[in-house]
Amino acid sequence: MSVDNPLDDLIRRLARLPGLGSRSARRAVMHLMKNRDSLMVPLAEDISRVAQSVRHCVECGNFDTADTCRICRNADRDQSRICVVEDVADLWAMERAGVFSGRYHVLGGVMSAIDGIGPQELRIDYLVSKAAEDEVQEVILATSATVDGQTTAHYIAERLEPAKVQVTRLAHGVPVGGELDYLDDGTLAQAMRARRLIND
Amino acid sequence: MSVDNPLDDLIRRLARLPGLGSRSARRAVMHLMKNRDSLMVPLAEDISRVAQSVRHCVECGNFDTADTCRICRNADRDQSRICVVEDVADLWAMERAGVFSGRYHVLGGVMSAIDGIGPQELRIDYLVSKAAEDEVQEVILATSATVDGQTTAHYIAERLEPAKVQVTRLAHGVPVGGELDYLDDGTLAQAMRARRLIND
Repeated sequence: MSVDNPLDDLIRRLARLPGLGSRSARRAVMHLMKNRDSLMVPLAEDISRVAQSVRHCVECGNFDTADTCRICRNADRDQSRICVVEDVADLWAMERAGVFSGRYHVLGGVMSAIDGIGPQELRIDYLVSKAAEDEVQEVILATSATVDGQTTAHYIAERLEPAKVQVTRLAHGVPVGGELDYLDDGTLAQAMRARRLIND
Repeated sequence: MSVDNPLDDLIRRLARLPGLGSRSARRAVMHLMKNRDSLMVPLAEDISRVAQSVRHCVECGNFDTADTCRICRNADRDQSRICVVEDVADLWAMERAGVFSGRYHVLGGVMSAIDGIGPQELRIDYLVSKAAEDEVQEVILATSATVDGQTTAHYIAERLEPAKVQVTRLAHGVPVGGELDYLDDGTLAQAMRARRLIND
């Protein structure tokens, strides 16, 4: 490459983002250079601002500019339900879907012996103590339907037994818009077992 | 969304990059947040540095931190050949391929009545005056094989007639690794017309 170093540095750095390779990073940089004032400069400012001001909520693990996030601060939300998700991205997905109005507990990963992630890293003690509060009636385990996700869910369910709360999990089944033909056998089997009356 | 504004701003801004939608922008931001010190902060610095220091070369239009780019400053390069490309990205592609050791002229676009891009915007007068210099023997028109790219190439070729230089264009044909079955008729026709001896 016969360009000077700052451009190369930027391309290499951008290429480390998920979904971007070196080709798309180059295209992105070209686009930034063509929109220097309207996009490139503000983007650098946005990234700096987020890096400086956004952190994990001390309660649930969500991202926010305050120590306690908007969701945890919101007294109007249902304080009797806690939804356990793996990641902040999963919390965002839940919020976008608008199907849950309670509080969250973001694990920040799943239990994995290989990666050395245990109950400590996922703040499960804290979840158990929160679940033991009088007002909490239900803990919804919304971890991924992967082996690690389900192992983690089972472990948490066991740990929650003394708290005497209802522990639930998301339903498995055919995704909306999904075609049976492309569905794996496991999902199909779960969907069949959990079938419901058509007018339900 | 129940996250604070800086994160939303950043996601919206990132989603404006080519190849990124709002979903991949969210994934990218999650990744940045997980690698704050190793990736996020340096990325903001890289973008600022490029926005401040990189500009178009006054000679050829390439990007560089200096007024005259590395390629134009390099006296070892072949001063007798000028390769005309649409965009800096095309110049980079040429340099990566390592098949051209002369100088460049980056048009910064193609002629387009709709977008109001004419010879003025593409600095074609400057190219013509450069081509008229004694040392220049060949101008290679490496614009895209699109209608606009070829129209621009023909216009430039006409303008270069008084300069008495050899004007060439890139060969059309089957891309290396390309399957005939997937090739359009135009390319196939060009490849057939321009066929060469197998030992050539």
